[in-house]
Amino acid sequence: MPNEAYEPDVEQLERWFREAMPLPGHLEPRFEEALRHLLRHPGSMVRPRIVYQVASAYGTQEQNAINLAVALEYFHTASLVFDDLPCMDNADSRRGAPCVHLRFGQAGAILAALALVNRAYALTWSAIATSAHQVQHKAMQYLEKSLGVEGLLNGQSLDLNYSHLPHDRETTERVACGKTVSLIRLTLVLPAMLGGAGPREVQLFERIARCWGLSYQIVDDLKDLLQSSQESGKTAARDQHLDRPNIALTIGVPDAVARLARLIDAGDATLQKLLTMRPNLAFLARLRADLNVELNRVTANASVGR
Amino acid sequence: MPNEAYEPDVEQLERWFREAMPLPGHLEPRFEEALRHLLRHPGSMVRPRIVYQVASAYGTQEQNAINLAVALEYFHTASLVFDDLPCMDNADSRRGAPCVHLRFGQAGAILAALALVNRAYALTWSAIATSAHQVQHKAMQYLEKSLGVEGLLNGQSLDLNYSHLPHDRETTERVACGKTVSLIRLTLVLPAMLGGAGPREVQLFERIARCWGLSYQIVDDLKDLLQSSQESGKTAARDQHLDRPNIALTIGVPDAVARLARLIDAGDATLQKLLTMRPNLAFLARLRADLNVELNRVTANASVGR
Repeated sequence: MPNEAYEPDVEQLERWFREAMPLPGHLEPRFEEALRHLLRHPGSMVRPRIVYQVASAYGTQEQNAINLAVALEYFHTASLVFDDLPCMDNADSRRGAPCVHLRFGQAGAILAALALVNRAYALTWSAIATSAHQVQHKAMQYLEKSLGVEGLLNGQSLDLNYSHLPHDRETTERVACGKTVSLIRLTLVLPAMLGGAGPREVQLFERIARCWGLSYQIVDDLKDLLQSSQESGKTAARDQHLDRPNIALTIGVPDAVARLARLIDAGDATLQKLLTMRPNLAFLARLRADLNVELNRVTANASVGR
Repeated sequence: MPNEAYEPDVEQLERWFREAMPLPGHLEPRFEEALRHLLRHPGSMVRPRIVYQVASAYGTQEQNAINLAVALEYFHTASLVFDDLPCMDNADSRRGAPCVHLRFGQAGAILAALALVNRAYALTWSAIATSAHQVQHKAMQYLEKSLGVEGLLNGQSLDLNYSHLPHDRETTERVACGKTVSLIRLTLVLPAMLGGAGPREVQLFERIARCWGLSYQIVDDLKDLLQSSQESGKTAARDQHLDRPNIALTIGVPDAVARLARLIDAGDATLQKLLTMRPNLAFLARLRADLNVELNRVTANASVGR
């Protein structure tokens, strides 16, 4: 097993993101343009970088690591396209550009997102194609559970129907567990599973995913409340307007910041246990440091906002 | 290899359709109800019956045959849910019930359709999980190609943007090849592939799929033009209203009926070749007879309509 995982830079990750979706020459132009729009506007690439690095740390063959990394980013991107539709969040901008449905129509957006989903399953499949049957089985079950009725989709539905739910911390975190933690958990657990991680390691990854997922959701909620549209890269202050779960709205900004700090601490403690078992996952500590940057940024904003 | 495949009746097929989607107890109610609505309103089950029978004829283990049959029907059902959305065909009814988006909102419809898609990939995966790596690889590639940018999705996009395309027979058939033939081809080829069919058999299945797929599309086009909403089970005469491809509109009812008869003949000739190689696929001839029933029905309607 290599001692330290190679860290692909963002340009490399974006190239993989663009190039893993071959587009044949004869596509319907509107559909093709919607897809090209999505491929031209990648996100921060934090998820695919984690997938690639975890997979590499477990000694996974490079092409499999790349395929899995891009697959999970395609799933994530597709979920955002659906999320942004008028019947869901009705957002205007995403990743610094107009939402794909505003440029190419809702049908174009839906078909492009489904193309990403279809390609993502194929890429996931090819990433695990040469694994042992038992590993394949566990990985495919985990993928289904995380994306399906028990995971992302139910989370999104809770999010949309939040106005019928109690507006408390438990409920907002339940929504975040479905909507945000599901994908981050997949990002950490799937490459580890593929590399042969045992049940104890998977459990630690799941706990870290929960702490970090909820943390990022709180950061997002705070950004929604405190920052302008330009800064956060997506339409701001929509949660309040649409009655969507936002922990900073529910328990107040100071308590949300305190909750964020506690989650980060709990994640740190779990990460330490994992690193004792797998020292070559040390890059996760640097990732974790990014959370501190976000924490400081929103804390600064929180002071300004008061 | 068994001599004659067991033919599951429609109640059995509907039971498989309903029961292959386990719903955990804690789902968001609107999402759950949208899913239950889809599971309570199955289609004719002609596709899953074909999948099951072809798989059985190739000696596939029963649970794998069931999983693949339901998977392809879930993909098909999901494609109809998307198809019926206001931004696409804007339909009112489907399978004798109001469209799911009219009952549970567009977001509910989209999330339920995505749940079917997610489950369908998992079921497909489990159906091929014990196959040889080479068979798995071919099957997953075929699935991706049929559903993705080269298949169903591009077909749907051509369909939606038909007003910008020439209104001739070639174009309407190009749309039908993407939108209709893709799924029928998958229905015939995937279970055969899984059972170890060679390239020549796959080629014959593909030709039959093209003939039958185009035939069913013409039947559908004729129904849209000639029948009432109640009879066809979906909203009638929408193609003309929405400027969607309809071969009966493009070349006229009598020529469409003639084209249908020619396609059925070409399918028959190909089926004969296949049956020479695989006599235990004889049930396909009965399926083919259903096309004659449809042909007679629309011919009768065409006479009434004139």
